Order: sequence, then structure tokens, then C-alpha cells
Amino acid sequence: MATETALKAHPRQSIWMFGLEADEPTEQQRGEQAAVLAKRWGVELDIPPIPRVEDLELRAPRIKPPDSIAEFCLTDNYERALHSKGDRLKEIRGQFDNPPDVVAHPRTDQELEAVLEWCSDNGYAAIPYGGGSSSANGVTPPDDWGGIVTIDMDQFDQVLEIDETSRSALIQAGTYGPALEDQLRPHGYTLRHFPQSFAGSTLGGWVATRSGGHFATNHTHIDDFVESTRMLTPSGWWESRRLPGSGAGPSPDRLVVGSEGSLGVITEAWMRIQKRPEYRATAGVTFPSWEAGYEATRRIVQAKLWPANLRLLDPELAQGSAGMDGDQALLVIGFESAEISQDWGVRQAVEIARDAGGVIDDADILTADAGQPTGRGGAVGAWRDAFIPSGGSALGIGTIGGTVETSISWERWPEFDRSVRAALLGALKEICGGGTVNCRFTHVYTDGPAPYYTYAGLYRPGLTEEDAYQVRKAGLDAFIAGGATVTHHHAVGRLHRPWYDQQRPELFASALRAAKLAVDPNAVLNPGVLIDM
Amino acid sequence: MATETALKAHPRQSIWMFGLEADEPTEQQRGEQAAVLAKRWGVELDIPPIPRVEDLELRAPRIKPPDSIAEFCLTDNYERALHSKGDRLKEIRGQFDNPPDVVAHPRTDQELEAVLEWCSDNGYAAIPYGGGSSSANGVTPPDDWGGIVTIDMDQFDQVLEIDETSRSALIQAGTYGPALEDQLRPHGYTLRHFPQSFAGSTLGGWVATRSGGHFATNHTHIDDFVESTRMLTPSGWWESRRLPGSGAGPSPDRLVVGSEGSLGVITEAWMRIQKRPEYRATAGVTFPSWEAGYEATRRIVQAKLWPANLRLLDPELAQGSAGMDGDQALLVIGFESAEISQDWGVRQAVEIARDAGGVIDDADILTADAGQPTGRGGAVGAWRDAFIPSGGSALGIGTIGGTVETSISWERWPEFDRSVRAALLGALKEICGGGTVNCRFTHVYTDGPAPYYTYAGLYRPGLTEEDAYQVRKAGLDAFIAGGATVTHHHAVGRLHRPWYDQQRPELFASALRAAKLAVDPNAVLNPGVLIDM
Repeated sequence: MATETALKAHPRQSIWMFGLEADEPTEQQRGEQAAVLAKRWGVELDIPPIPRVEDLELRAPRIKPPDSIAEFCLTDNYERALHSKGDRLKEIRGQFDNPPDVVAHPRTDQELEAVLEWCSDNGYAAIPYGGGSSSANGVTPPDDWGGIVTIDMDQFDQVLEIDETSRSALIQAGTYGPALEDQLRPHGYTLRHFPQSFAGSTLGGWVATRSGGHFATNHTHIDDFVESTRMLTPSGWWESRRLPGSGAGPSPDRLVVGSEGSLGVITEAWMRIQKRPEYRATAGVTFPSWEAGYEATRRIVQAKLWPANLRLLDPELAQGSAGMDGDQALLVIGFESAEISQDWGVRQAVEIARDAGGVIDDADILTADAGQPTGRGGAVGAWRDAFIPSGGSALGIGTIGGTVETSISWERWPEFDRSVRAALLGALKEICGGGTVNCRFTHVYTDGPAPYYTYAGLYRPGLTEEDAYQVRKAGLDAFIAGGATVTHHHAVGRLHRPWYDQQRPELFASALRAAKLAVDPNAVLNPGVLIDM
Repeated sequence: MATETALKAHPRQSIWMFGLEADEPTEQQRGEQAAVLAKRWGVELDIPPIPRVEDLELRAPRIKPPDSIAEFCLTDNYERALHSKGDRLKEIRGQFDNPPDVVAHPRTDQELEAVLEWCSDNGYAAIPYGGGSSSANGVTPPDDWGGIVTIDMDQFDQVLEIDETSRSALIQAGTYGPALEDQLRPHGYTLRHFPQSFAGSTLGGWVATRSGGHFATNHTHIDDFVESTRMLTPSGWWESRRLPGSGAGPSPDRLVVGSEGSLGVITEAWMRIQKRPEYRATAGVTFPSWEAGYEATRRIVQAKLWPANLRLLDPELAQGSAGMDGDQALLVIGFESAEISQDWGVRQAVEIARDAGGVIDDADILTADAGQPTGRGGAVGAWRDAFIPSGGSALGIGTIGGTVETSISWERWPEFDRSVRAALLGALKEICGGGTVNCRFTHVYTDGPAPYYTYAGLYRPGLTEEDAYQVRKAGLDAFIAGGATVTHHHAVGRLHRPWYDQQRPELFASALRAAKLAVDPNAVLNPGVLIDM
């Protein structure tokens, strides 16, 4: 086989945690972490060993790709375990009960067409796969399906074209965050879309899941940066025009964005890119209470100053991650621009914040113009350091922890917040004997915030996956009862389906089902997300 | 019949021009206008008389509403002629060849359900109608249809609720622009959506057609202000949640927005409203050339200053409407805010404009803070005055004139602009012996402008509707050939269908068709817009 047709290699990922295999903790590190937790909780901890690819005994593939596509279809343990992404509590124990039968890595449009046709003709589930970072089981193989093919788009990993005049770029769907930025950086541009999953997720995944990005206000979701999309469906190609704006019928792109692989495989998109920022201004404002903090946040966003960062931490979180006193909330304000000093903006925002009870020394309003170092000290710096994901090394050691996120109108927010906290704490108490809940705003709108709740239970031996689900359920039930959305930027996947089904207009589901059958007549694409057929 | 169930009266509208009957020109005024044009062109002009409702001989209604809905179903000449909206050149001559058989004015959800059920059960075309201001024949009765019912939503004309905390309002779909603002104003709010059709169009129409609004940058279409929608389909109600932001599947609202009455009858929407601006800043910057003007505009919008107004007039337009010298372009920059002085923003924009060759005296940068009068002098004032619609009094006097509008990426824009002008001027030359074309940007994006072309032919006797269509066709053909959209904010309707069909992904049309049948199984809703069944 000629070298140029071989699959491009990407860094080997962990089959049991988010991140690279190279970043997995050693058995010794896990043991040390377990010892810390054991001491904190006053118990003995038994941690499972790290699962090894070579030890896995997976169900034998039930289908065999024809010779015409075999070259890019893999069936080894690593590929099939990696693409099983679903139940992490089982995966950390090396249990992969329902792996895909085949993992395809098409390199060209023609190869993609061939594998999708093979799936559609034979009724095999076809799961479009970006980085597999879904926290909502968006690429988990469906149960009760005779043949499952995951289509990993990692060979489509190029920024194909940069239109500097229009500040747009044509980017292939399988391009991972860091690779995407690496290709834009030499030209002075950035997509500036940095979800927490950045390193392990792709452009196509962001578009398919309406990923939430870097900007805390104004343009919060990837949706706003999509100029056009190209997608392969079993019925053929779906490609929209590059349009800065349009009023010609419902937006085709807005049906692709959020379709979660149920309508087709996104292969590329023209994206609005940003000139790399040269000017920054930041301020970390403290408030005497959570209520004062969110009132100030509301007023800043309603003044339409559009800071890039406007992230509010509740007192629990501000204490834990930025050393506040446990009553104070912390609002991190950040402005950025490629062209213009942002001193004016941050001072306007600070003035509003102070008027609403916020406290910050003038000396802590940090403006960095072009060529100057960015301020990273004080409360802002502390928060940034705390934001680095933990890498999952505490997984599987017997605690319940998780996050749920949503958005809600300002008017309903205070009562809503109380009800969500009560629901989560109640469930933690019942299931774990107690626990903690904290909240931050990840994104903010003129009409309401996007709160992000993190919860953790006390240690309790014998906790099951069902126990963990019950805690999550308490939070999501409160979301739906309070009129909010089941997710602001983590997608529906399979995990959020029961709540999504209560949230969306039933007739929209009917319309989406019909639209799907129009482009995916055998209903093979990512079965189980968004709708049932 | 009890008074409280009678139909609410609205000012009587003109059956032949946009606007109220009370604003129609008199025969004498039309004669005077014709004399001006006759002198300009050196010809004799024969103007048709203004058509009178009482003289019309319309086709007899072919269907009869059942008694249960008869009370709000009208069939008189005025109603049927008014709702015929389509071929204005015929209408001005009193020809209404295909009027709706019945014009329903439901007052309640139940009455709306009853009339839509009657249509769906009997296969009558059901045309949701807002203000009828469509310039794309969006509410024109379809040919070859056995029974046609226009559903005028004018009885749904209330702002039902204002949520000041979230800056949102629940507004009924049939609320006309001025009535909507009248109901928000006492509370200090405004929707700030002012299309040219403002006085003669409704919220529901704006949402159904993705109307372009007041803001020239950032939030340009009504789409951005829709928080949730409520719509009746033949299969039942479609109602979304009020969500500031969501990542849960494709947005249901984004399928409603732009559906042009093909999926259902929008009855109300929660809209993001604005605090009434107290602070304004404006500047009219002149440029030595069109090219220098649009280069500056690009740089301002790419600096993300987000002015409310950023409207560029080409030299022809700047000369005609603001007294420029015929080479100079004029850029009108405007900032506004309810909370904060906008002096900083306008000065940043002016600095960029000057750097790109723009000229403005410092004294002409006008900042009006709270309580101060707004600057309305200089070039900006002249342009505002010129912007007042002419009221159609020159209609039917034998000229070809019209507008086409689109959006295109900056990189393609210069060549695109040349090709569109060449196409329009070529067609005008061929058909009228000559004419003029000018252009302005109505809205501007980081990745491209939304140009709006106005064209007018020389007088030529005997021009037909087909001649007028050929001129328009030349422009729209150039749009599609150049990769642009057939419309940026005037909707598809029936007029733009041939170009829309070339523009949208064919599979999106298949999906939309399927989605429509899922909610409108007998395909009675506004036949002919967007898709054929």
C-alpha cells in the first residue's frame, strides 16, 4: 500500500478518561490520590486498576466491511474500545459491553460516501464521530442494533482555505481544536472557540452539538460563527452558500447546527474567524453576596458592553477556587480586541459593577495594550489556575460528582436557582448523606444567564451508576420544571433525551423526524439522539 | 351580537399602494407628479385613475364559510382586494384577478383553530397574513387553487406581558409596528425593529420573513430577538420555551423564523426588547471613492465596535440624497445606548474611518447624552430625510424601478458589485434605453456587507410587467451567479422562488417539504412559498 494513502496517525487517546493515553495517571499516582481521599473521608478505598487495551475481551465484530472500504476500517481493541464512549464508570473498569463493530476513518469524500452507503444499504447504525468528548453520550453506540459503524472524521483535519479579507476559513470537520488553532495562528487568526473539551474535540463536533465557546456574551455558541456547512447524508450532499447574512427561508445551517449526527456527517464548514487579540482588559470584582453578583452581571450584559469574559462564581466556588471568604461572589470581566484598547470597556463594566455593590481596587483593573503582557494576577489568575480540568484521576473511587448546565430568564432566575440547589442537595443527602453544590455563569444574555452547577456527594461505599443518575436526574428535573433547557451547550445525546423530550415542541420533533427520513431514509444515522424513529 | 365580540377596526389601508387609504395621493397630486416626470422625460404621460373599492368587480367567492366561523370571515370588495397583494402594476389599474375567497379575522385561539381546520379539512389554501407589506409576493393568493382563505391576524394586536427584569415581552403576532411601540413606550422599552415597512407590517410578519431591522451590525435580523414562538399548525400547536440560549438540538425557533407561513400561523412570540436609548452619537464620514468607503466599513465592523447604524451610501446615492459631489461615498455611523455615553465608540469608528481615507470635521462628530437633543444636522440629517418612502405616487406611470438586496463576503464583494451593476445597467439599457443604479449597505457583518441596489430605467412608453421582471431578473441572476443570496431581508415569497431554488441546498428543500407535511398534512398553508409539494 502506498504511504500516501495510509491513515494519518493522531496521538493515542485514553480509552477510559478524557485526554491522551500519555496523560493517564500512573497506578502510583492513582494510589496517592486515593490515599488523600481515604484520609479525607476516613475510609479504606479500593481503586480499580487502569484498564489496558491489550487485556480487553470485546465482543467479536458482527459485520465485516467489504474489501472496497476495508483499508480505512479498523476493528482492533483500541479503536473499538475508544469509540465505545458511554458509561465511564464501566469503562474505568475495562467493561466495554457494546463497542462499535467497525471504526471507519475515511480520508476522502469518496471514502466517506462509500462507508455511509454501506451502512445505509445494510441498515447498520452510522455514528459520526469527532473527538468523542461528548458528556451526554452523543456518540455512544446504540443498544439493540445489529451492526454499528463509527465514522471517525479524524482524517479530515485541515484548514483548507483562509479568506483574510472576510475573516473566514474553510475548515475540515475532523480538525481538533489545537490543530485548528495551529493552522490559523501563522496567519494571525484564531477561531477563538475554546470549550473545556478543546484539546479533545473537533470543529465538526462543535457544530453538530452547538458547542458553547470562548465568548461569554454576544456570540456564545459556535452557531454564530458558522458561515456555511457541508454535510454528507445517505441521500447525498447538503451544502449551503457562504453568506454573511440571509433572510431567504429558514436557515439551512441552523438545522445542521445541533443535529448531533442524526442528519448527516459534517465534512467541512466555512467559519467566521477572529484576528488574534492584541488588547486585553480584565477585572475581578467581588460582591458581598451571590445576589449582588448576579444583579451586577445582569446590568452589565443589558448595557450591551459585550465583554468576552463575564463569568460569575458563586460564594462556594469563589472560596474554593479563588480564596474568597465564603460569602463573596466573584465576577471575572474580560475584554479583548485585535484593534482597539479595551480600557474604556472594562471601566464602564466596573462602574456598573461598583454601582451594584461590587468591590475592586482601581489598581486591579488591568489593561494590556498591544505588546504588553496580559494581567494574570489577583483573583482572575487564581480562577484560571483552578479551571484546569482535573484529568479524571479521581474517577471510579466511589464518589458522585457531575455538572448540569442550562439557561433561564433573569426574572425566573432567583427562584429557579434556589429550586435547583434544593433538588441537587436533597438528592445528594438522600443518596450520599450530603454533599456540595456550586454554580457559575459560563455565558450571559440580555434576557438571562447560563448557570453551570457542579455537585459532589460525600463518600459512600457501594454507590452505583444508578445512584449517580438519580442525582443528575434531580437537577435536570428541576431544570425542566423551572422552564429552562436541559442543556445550554453540552448537547442532548442519549443522556439528556428524557428531559429534551419534555422541553422541545412535540411538533418540532415530528418535523425533525420527517426531515431526517427525507435525507436518511433508512434511519441509520446516530440512532437514539434527539428523536426516536 | 355583543359589542365585545365585534372585530376590532384598524385604519383602512390602500388597496393599491403601501400605506393607508388616507395617505393615498389625490388625482390632482398624481397629475402634478406626472407632469413633473413628463417634463423631465419630454413626453406625454397618461396616468391611470386611482382604483376605487366600490368600482371593483371581483370574482364571486367560490367557497362559503360555515356559520360557526362566519362572524369573523369577511368577503367584501375591500377585504378581498386588499388581501390580493401581488401584482402592483395590475392593482394600480384596479385589476384583482385572483382575490382570496374569504378573509378571516380570528379573534381567539379557538377561532383560529376553527378556520385553519376548515381550510385543512377542505384543502383550501390558508394564507397567514400580517400587514401584507411583502415585496416578494409572500401573501399573494396562489393560482390554480380551488378555495383561498387569507387569515389576517390583525385581531391579535396586544403586547400581553412585559418582563422588565429579563427585558423581554410577549407580543401577539398581528401587532403592527406603531401599535407595538405604543404599548412598550410607557414602560420605557422598545423592540427597536424598524424595517421600512414598519407602519404597515406586524411582528408575526417580521418573524415569518426574517425581517431586517434597525441595527446595522451585530443583531441585524429579527431572528436575534426571538426568545420563543407560538404557532398553530393544522396538526396542532407548536410552542417553544423561553430560553436566553440553548444547545439542545437544532433550534425550533430557527425553523419557524423564515417559514413564511408555510408551516403554521404564528400567534405570538416572546421577544427580547431594548431599553429606550438615552445616549446617541453619530458621524457622517465622506470618502473620496466608493472603494475607500467600503474598505472603511469593513474595518469598522471587523473591529467589532457594533454601531447601531453603519450605512454606506455609494457616490450616486450620496449625491442624490445628501448633496455629495458624485465621487464621494458617505458612511453614516450611529451609536446608541440606554445606559452609557457613546462618545468613545463613535470616536473609535471615526478614527478607523479616517485611517481609511475618510473625512469628517471633529465638530461634526455629534454626541448626545441623556437629556440632550440628538444631532440631526449635516449629511446624516439629509440622508434621513431622503429615506422617507415615497408612498408609491409615481407608480404605474411608465417607468421601471425597483430594489434588490443581498449579502456577500468581503473578498468577493468588489467583483460582485461590478457584475451586479453591469447586469442591471445592461438590462435597463436593453429594455429602457438606459437608467441608473445605486447602492447602499443596509447591514454589515464581519464577513461581508448586505448591499441594497436601487435601479430606475429611463422612461419608455409601453413597458410591460414582463419588462420590469426582466430587469429584476438580471440583478437576481447576477446575485446567484456571484454566490450571494437572493434576499438578505425581503423574504422569498413567490417572487424570489426561481433564485431561491438555485441557492438553497436541494436536500434542505427535501427536509423542509417533509417537515411541512408532518405539521400540515394536507399542504394547505401558503402554497408556493419556499417549496412546492
